[in-house]
Amino acid sequence: MTTIGIVLSGCGVKDGSEIHEAVLTILYLEQQGAKMIFMAPDIEQDQVVNHLTGKKTGETRNVLIESARIARGNIRDIRKVKASEMDGMILPGGFGAVCNLSDFSAAGKKAKVNPDVKQLIRDMVSLKKPVGALCIAPATLVAAICEKKPSITIGHDLTVAKTLEEMGGVHRNCSVDEICVDESNRLVTTPAYMLGPGIKDIAVGIEKLVKKILSMVNS
Amino acid sequence: MTTIGIVLSGCGVKDGSEIHEAVLTILYLEQQGAKMIFMAPDIEQDQVVNHLTGKKTGETRNVLIESARIARGNIRDIRKVKASEMDGMILPGGFGAVCNLSDFSAAGKKAKVNPDVKQLIRDMVSLKKPVGALCIAPATLVAAICEKKPSITIGHDLTVAKTLEEMGGVHRNCSVDEICVDESNRLVTTPAYMLGPGIKDIAVGIEKLVKKILSMVNS
Repeated sequence: MTTIGIVLSGCGVKDGSEIHEAVLTILYLEQQGAKMIFMAPDIEQDQVVNHLTGKKTGETRNVLIESARIARGNIRDIRKVKASEMDGMILPGGFGAVCNLSDFSAAGKKAKVNPDVKQLIRDMVSLKKPVGALCIAPATLVAAICEKKPSITIGHDLTVAKTLEEMGGVHRNCSVDEICVDESNRLVTTPAYMLGPGIKDIAVGIEKLVKKILSMVNS
Repeated sequence: MTTIGIVLSGCGVKDGSEIHEAVLTILYLEQQGAKMIFMAPDIEQDQVVNHLTGKKTGETRNVLIESARIARGNIRDIRKVKASEMDGMILPGGFGAVCNLSDFSAAGKKAKVNPDVKQLIRDMVSLKKPVGALCIAPATLVAAICEKKPSITIGHDLTVAKTLEEMGGVHRNCSVDEICVDESNRLVTTPAYMLGPGIKDIAVGIEKLVKKILSMVNS
């Protein structure tokens, strides 16, 4: 059975994993018969945002514990997950992907990736195992493997795309119902809620991403 | 355009709305062309549970603010939503449906429903507008309209079913890929994660529930 790792970054679009993107990824993987390993870093969140007002609350919450809400409790500290356990890996989006998994949201082109997240991404890419990323998560992917000149998409936001190119990435414009494939690095990305506008729109690209990752596992 | 209310109860299976159930409800409603009004009570959660350990944390969190994570910020205080604004309404499951929307989890057959939630459910049923409920949420539905002898399902848990019958409900066993329809009260229920086991399994019953609610709106 194919095993895909899901890297979560909290629970909520404004300070963690984007919930709809994560759940659709899980849905399509299970519908395709894949097994999943949920994981997240066991660290404090960069921030906690009141999703009703959009304002920071000043609370502290733990990325692994909040991610467990999406995973229904079945989740591991990413530090303890090895690339050898997985056939592929997917990073859903949400602001947490660039403020908890890396500091791209604050540092831009000087972004540093959480060491455990970085190591696992680099191990997967070295082993030629496919890695997918949704929404803004490709920014963390680029920061982790910039010397490999990864081809990715975050939709068609010119400012973000320029920053990703300055980091070493190759940005390709892409619509929400499509995927961007880097055959050489075995990466698959889709804009999801970078474009939206709705869940039915992002669902199309996410289902394509999941199917492409699984087809890469078997080729 | 058909407008369906989504009644949330927090964000996480163990102390709020079950995330997968809520997101699948949203997905299928949007795919069918429905507009949604997200709502939740503006009250403190009954409890906050660490979803990694399953233990209560002693924190306080607000049901409306946490529900906003699932709704991506677009959510209203249920007290300010009127039945006249909606064509139908759906309550996803999760423990929050019976510890925040009502106290069924603690009080069993003596359960009381949050007054604003109760009023809205009763208004919808009086107006013959369809109401759906997933997983354990039918328990709150029964508590709100027990004198109408609502026919519902929570799967086939004998103990819970017996309690619901003692409250005035009529329980029907149902598999996860099916729905229970009360044509007289215009209620639709499905077991979802009361049975599971996986997201692909609950998705089948939830999609049927959504389609049935929308067909009732138009008949």
